[in-house]
Amino acid sequence: MYKYSVILGNLGNTCDRFCKGYKDNPSTEEMLAEAVKIPHVEGIELVGTWDIRPDNVKDMKRRMQDYGKTCVSIIPDVFTDKVYGKGTITNNDPAIRRKALDYLRKIGEIALEMDCKLVNMWMAQDGYDYLLSTDYDQKRDWLCEGTAALAKEFPTLKFALEYKPKEPRNFSFHARMADTLLAAQETGCDNVGICIDTGHSFYAGENTAEAVVLAKRAGNKLFHMHFNDNHGCWDDDMIVASVHSTVYIDLLFQLKKTGYQGWLSMDQYPYREHATDAIGESVLWVRRFEEIVEHNFTEIENLIRKDDAVETSRFMRKALFGK
Amino acid sequence: MYKYSVILGNLGNTCDRFCKGYKDNPSTEEMLAEAVKIPHVEGIELVGTWDIRPDNVKDMKRRMQDYGKTCVSIIPDVFTDKVYGKGTITNNDPAIRRKALDYLRKIGEIALEMDCKLVNMWMAQDGYDYLLSTDYDQKRDWLCEGTAALAKEFPTLKFALEYKPKEPRNFSFHARMADTLLAAQETGCDNVGICIDTGHSFYAGENTAEAVVLAKRAGNKLFHMHFNDNHGCWDDDMIVASVHSTVYIDLLFQLKKTGYQGWLSMDQYPYREHATDAIGESVLWVRRFEEIVEHNFTEIENLIRKDDAVETSRFMRKALFGK
Amino acid sequence: MYKYSVILGNLGNTCDRFCKGYKDNPSTEEMLAEAVKIPHVEGIELVGTWDIRPDNVKDMKRRMQDYGKTCVSIIPDVFTDKVYGKGTITNNDPAIRRKALDYLRKIGEIALEMDCKLVNMWMAQDGYDYLLSTDYDQKRDWLCEGTAALAKEFPTLKFALEYKPKEPRNFSFHARMADTLLAAQETGCDNVGICIDTGHSFYAGENTAEAVVLAKRAGNKLFHMHFNDNHGCWDDDMIVASVHSTVYIDLLFQLKKTGYQGWLSMDQYPYREHATDAIGESVLWVRRFEEIVEHNFTEIENLIRKDDAVETSRFMRKALFGK
Amino acid sequence: MYKYSVILGNLGNTCDRFCKGYKDNPSTEEMLAEAVKIPHVEGIELVGTWDIRPDNVKDMKRRMQDYGKTCVSIIPDVFTDKVYGKGTITNNDPAIRRKALDYLRKIGEIALEMDCKLVNMWMAQDGYDYLLSTDYDQKRDWLCEGTAALAKEFPTLKFALEYKPKEPRNFSFHARMADTLLAAQETGCDNVGICIDTGHSFYAGENTAEAVVLAKRAGNKLFHMHFNDNHGCWDDDMIVASVHSTVYIDLLFQLKKTGYQGWLSMDQYPYREHATDAIGESVLWVRRFEEIVEHNFTEIENLIRKDDAVETSRFMRKALFGK
Repeated sequence: MYKYSVILGNLGNTCDRFCKGYKDNPSTEEMLAEAVKIPHVEGIELVGTWDIRPDNVKDMKRRMQDYGKTCVSIIPDVFTDKVYGKGTITNNDPAIRRKALDYLRKIGEIALEMDCKLVNMWMAQDGYDYLLSTDYDQKRDWLCEGTAALAKEFPTLKFALEYKPKEPRNFSFHARMADTLLAAQETGCDNVGICIDTGHSFYAGENTAEAVVLAKRAGNKLFHMHFNDNHGCWDDDMIVASVHSTVYIDLLFQLKKTGYQGWLSMDQYPYREHATDAIGESVLWVRRFEEIVEHNFTEIENLIRKDDAVETSRFMRKALFGK
Repeated sequence: MYKYSVILGNLGNTCDRFCKGYKDNPSTEEMLAEAVKIPHVEGIELVGTWDIRPDNVKDMKRRMQDYGKTCVSIIPDVFTDKVYGKGTITNNDPAIRRKALDYLRKIGEIALEMDCKLVNMWMAQDGYDYLLSTDYDQKRDWLCEGTAALAKEFPTLKFALEYKPKEPRNFSFHARMADTLLAAQETGCDNVGICIDTGHSFYAGENTAEAVVLAKRAGNKLFHMHFNDNHGCWDDDMIVASVHSTVYIDLLFQLKKTGYQGWLSMDQYPYREHATDAIGESVLWVRRFEEIVEHNFTEIENLIRKDDAVETSRFMRKALFGK
Repeated sequence: MYKYSVILGNLGNTCDRFCKGYKDNPSTEEMLAEAVKIPHVEGIELVGTWDIRPDNVKDMKRRMQDYGKTCVSIIPDVFTDKVYGKGTITNNDPAIRRKALDYLRKIGEIALEMDCKLVNMWMAQDGYDYLLSTDYDQKRDWLCEGTAALAKEFPTLKFALEYKPKEPRNFSFHARMADTLLAAQETGCDNVGICIDTGHSFYAGENTAEAVVLAKRAGNKLFHMHFNDNHGCWDDDMIVASVHSTVYIDLLFQLKKTGYQGWLSMDQYPYREHATDAIGESVLWVRRFEEIVEHNFTEIENLIRKDDAVETSRFMRKALFGK
Repeated sequence: MYKYSVILGNLGNTCDRFCKGYKDNPSTEEMLAEAVKIPHVEGIELVGTWDIRPDNVKDMKRRMQDYGKTCVSIIPDVFTDKVYGKGTITNNDPAIRRKALDYLRKIGEIALEMDCKLVNMWMAQDGYDYLLSTDYDQKRDWLCEGTAALAKEFPTLKFALEYKPKEPRNFSFHARMADTLLAAQETGCDNVGICIDTGHSFYAGENTAEAVVLAKRAGNKLFHMHFNDNHGCWDDDMIVASVHSTVYIDLLFQLKKTGYQGWLSMDQYPYREHATDAIGESVLWVRRFEEIVEHNFTEIENLIRKDDAVETSRFMRKALFGK
């Protein structure tokens, strides 16, 4: 079985663009105390600035140790600061590009201090909104240079680029698995890879299970996994299996087959739900799907060789209902 | 439990716009002989011209009786004749409008002869492709007049308008549940109602379970149900539950709660699959979901009153995995 | 030519779900002083609580008079208060339903005081997120009752229901034109109609020009218009014509043909743009499209009767390029 | 100005999956006689088997010479033969993989005979329909091997992989620009590149103008261009600019800026339109957009450096309306 983790901020107050959140906002310490109680969760992802800053690194490290939990990743906060509204390391303004890179370096140092092996880079503002207003080539140069500079300065860290087709920008540079693999390749750095967020992938048009294979073929580039579900056209950030089922089984099968070594992390926005319960549900669903793959690995291998939708349907009925 | 049926043509050669089909095309009689063997299937839908014509009504009626199966609906073929390329009863040409209405009348007569209670009207060509090229108001007048004329001439038949957002036209007049209810209301005829095709509904943006409630509120207007699945953006016409799960349970719950009295009919395009096996799988999946609703009706009633996604998730895990 | 207006809040700080806005937040008075300078703008829409409250009604009324501008609508703020997170007049909690209705009544009174003829009801929280967790029928009863109660208490006001397929909820009850017409009909109130937001309509799957005709056929139910553009899959709230062109001409033609009497109001989220300039651009685009319709009304009437995509294409080339 | 071409088959009878076409089917010779009359068209694309076979190569070559037109590409017909229903060079059956490769070789030889420089490979059947039924990794191995074998045997030909997210399969292996670049890279062959079909790209979620830049960055991999338009969610294969406008200008600007050397070819399915007129309209639209780019190249360069949506909007108004 894989190891499971959660993003700490998912336990807090998640807002939308109209309402500043439907809950009270607990402190980082309160959220951590709750997160560690979720069954099967052995690791935590921390968002820079929100959860982790130079001033609280020591304290957070001690707390994580006391709870016996691993710091799975640090996620740089490059999405809440308005200065990055038109891009971080792809901003037209060189001063902002420098500021962004300096901030990312600081996150790298924090990751080292926390004995955290992975920086999860969701470059949310690096994209564009309108057509005929962006020098795509220039901006991709800057994206490549900034990412490579960072990766080279921290050779012992892994940098996982988390892709998403849109939001907050109308188009992201890291949009889908294949685009992001091309961007990772351009850096020439072995320690730059990819993070799949299942929900981002579901509404990107790609098949998430196939995306795992693309990453494997490009040189074992899948570094991290975020789990959630949605209705297929937007990042609804829902409990796993609220909408889909088969795709998770195909995905977990391909993770195992391609030798994925990372964590399975839950990433939801439980706007109106009890946060730990909603996240805990996702853990239980993913584990159930994982069990199906564990118990039927050879049978699934045969299925995917047969390419017979009727056989697949029969297997799914048996897997879900036992008959 | 509901009664199950299949559309006969689904057992034949289903083509796409590039390839004229991936199978041999069996005769109507051969397909019928196969269809009646699918477990739990008690009724058959026949497509006009393909399966049923004035010249073979008597023969088909006798065959159905011999097999002990019900003729659940006749589906007028208003989609394969090129003369209807720019519309049937909404065509700009009055001669074509008349021809279409005459053909629909003939189908009405065949339905009466077959002791079939329902004409399933998929008005596939009644829509448009380009913007700024259609007199929407005029065409909707013709749509209403033609439908009303037919419904009044056959007061003992039910006419179910099957909606679909697009294909073969880029926009259909009967696009979603709500549009089609408005169209049905305009006719002023009690015997004009709606057919939901789950796949059409899935890629129309609406929630199929809620569509059932809209039809109920408009005066018990849900006359018929077609089942299949897709990946959420097109009419892939796949085996039920290949992609989705929860939505079928919500749908079957609402069917029961609103007192749906019709058939559950399978409607797929098993392009590359063994047809009867693929259709048989759909029957088994729908029945499994139906059992879940039967065995947990009161619990689901409580769930939908509670509006707690965590409870719903727990229920789904239990319903699917028994734990 | 139609009269043009803007929503005041569009000039302020528009945030997304990650960043609390990319601008400073000017005061209502500052925004008003800017809005009235946008060329061709004769009216203003005010959002309840943000812009207009019992304590500033008199002041705002005087300011609008001094500027010589009309208060085109009041938009109740039922989307920023967390108490309405699971619905306003459709909330499971009767106390919240009452509170919501009381708030809406207060907005009705403010509208009367402001000599404003229209309340624009975007019932953003009245929907649901998860399947199998909502009593659709019960909630639609409450939606109908609340809307009808309000409309009857304020018979001299018009209430425009603004539809949107999703966001902030994963599904809205007022989702598309046809659903919302059914909801308006259920109230039995002549003063309940519809507001089209072009962007909401673009990503709802419907054709906006046809939606105008649906509203006309249901009894001249189009009460109000919001303009913006998007990339077709989300409410990007962009400058008009950033992406689309033909659809606006078809839309403005149908507005004229169906005798629309209301305002054309701009509704954008210029997150990273200069607000008044971005809104001013939309005004100029809509006016350009309006001119095309004015100067070619009879020719367009012929086009839509002909149903010839080649003729439509030729017309568009001539209309846009003059050759 | 670029050189313009058309796909010959677009002048014929284009069918959908329900109706076997809305027109009569002219002969190849008749279509060619019509195609050469479309203003500005200097080249023709021929579909293997439909238009060009070993038995008519000499005749077609002479006809093209007589008309003074270039054979721009040969498109292998790997989409109409039912034997390829579950894949051509990715078929699980080695005999079918061999047959497909042999057929592609024959097309390579025909291309050489026709002095045609490009084979346009739309590998329509190489994908899959159902989840949990495909060995993605194995099939991508075969895809790579087959493509590389072909490219190496014909080192003087260019092979353009035309991507499309789905149809006829629910998922294509060559789905979007980035996936297809990765596939091209895997072959290690310089003469394997990409064909953009604008309509495929529009409904793939990517920005077509940015896709051009991705191809350039991967080593000038854009070999060919197909033009058409759609409503944003399906391959409607409509006249250019029926729906979109700005995206074409951004696209043509990026083509020029990245030094694209190929043809601009029209690829439509004028199901119900007069074929040559509909295709001729697309040519005129693309040329109009090309003129805008030609006349304003430096201004657009400044625009894309500025990243100011208001400036872009002003430019578009001026470009389209001259004021």
